[in-house]
Amino acid sequence: MSADISLAVSTAIFALRPHPDTGLSALWIPLVRRTRDPFENRWALPGGWVSPDESLSDAAARNLLETTGVEPTYLEQLYAFGAVDRSPDRRVVSIVYWALVRPEQADAATDGDNVRWFLADDLPELAFDHNLIVDYALWRLRTKMEYSRIAHAFLGPTFTLTELREVHEAVLQRPLDPANFRRQVEPTLVATETLVTGGRHRPPRLYRYDESVRLVDNGPLTIATPRSTP
Amino acid sequence: MSADISLAVSTAIFALRPHPDTGLSALWIPLVRRTRDPFENRWALPGGWVSPDESLSDAAARNLLETTGVEPTYLEQLYAFGAVDRSPDRRVVSIVYWALVRPEQADAATDGDNVRWFLADDLPELAFDHNLIVDYALWRLRTKMEYSRIAHAFLGPTFTLTELREVHEAVLQRPLDPANFRRQVEPTLVATETLVTGGRHRPPRLYRYDESVRLVDNGPLTIATPRSTP
Repeated sequence: MSADISLAVSTAIFALRPHPDTGLSALWIPLVRRTRDPFENRWALPGGWVSPDESLSDAAARNLLETTGVEPTYLEQLYAFGAVDRSPDRRVVSIVYWALVRPEQADAATDGDNVRWFLADDLPELAFDHNLIVDYALWRLRTKMEYSRIAHAFLGPTFTLTELREVHEAVLQRPLDPANFRRQVEPTLVATETLVTGGRHRPPRLYRYDESVRLVDNGPLTIATPRSTP
Repeated sequence: MSADISLAVSTAIFALRPHPDTGLSALWIPLVRRTRDPFENRWALPGGWVSPDESLSDAAARNLLETTGVEPTYLEQLYAFGAVDRSPDRRVVSIVYWALVRPEQADAATDGDNVRWFLADDLPELAFDHNLIVDYALWRLRTKMEYSRIAHAFLGPTFTLTELREVHEAVLQRPLDPANFRRQVEPTLVATETLVTGGRHRPPRLYRYDESVRLVDNGPLTIATPRSTP
């Protein structure tokens, strides 16, 4: 039996916002300041306990909204963290999700005393094993960017090829050759009739993803993205 | 709090053994007959409860050994299944692992009244949501075969290119062109000095995987393969 094990959910949420030094897009993550022991005053991933009457993804979405006000465009289970000593005062197994939000959603979750956005690659020492969890979530995000259309969740419904490339560059943290990038992604895109106006000689075209292909292939599992949460 | 949620582990174990009709390699999975309600007499994935003093992967390895006698060469966390109604009499969240074993290890786990090997693609109706879990594990295995060296876990330390190709063909369930396959896998292999003797005109060479590359890249997480379990 497992009556002595507490089950929690936590979520690593990523958004792209400008880096304060360079002005270029960078990955940010919202953290919550702990108001009690263990690790009082340390920053931690938003999360909480699972209620007996809610699924794991519902628990993740509810705790995310309650602690940060964020409703993600993409939510996927990352991993179950269950080392025996990961919490000092009791046994806690955490089912961790990772989520992506668009910049305007990130702006809605304003900083406060107990919620703050941090550069994902430059974090302080977090509570519990949350630095390890963020490292793993970053690795999963960067791996998945290479072979799926995860960048979609960072953008609106239409975007220019330059905007899409800049998302990939910000997540992967390296410049990409524009011509090569165009060749790789164009088969997954649908060109709209709309050009971006603004006085340039050759106004860029807006694209959208081909919706007949699923955003991320999770095989036989349907991973629900929470559209509305109570 | 989560005192009303029980935490279990289950494992989907795959081995390659001959298909009874074709004699070709096929994926098999060991199942355990349930001896009590819910789902008494139905077949289910081996598993059990997590003890407060053991990690999730230790719990998976222990339950696997206790129920089937199998010690896998590869063990990786698959997914946490936590739908509210997946067990009829109480709330159970199951952390599911998937594992691979070599044929000789599979043979050690002999069939009994309450343990039996089934063709993974032709299962009866299982207890709980275990058919869904096996479908997802099969999808993960087949996806991972395409971009990692997971086939290693099905083979001994050395093997011929034909043996390696037959593992891929058995898992993916389609024939592969020998010349193309050779071109794709040779960069990941080290040729040994050993030829397979046996009277053929051109005895095939034995290869081994390049051990300087990790079997499966799990990024910053180290997924322990249990080498010995109590």
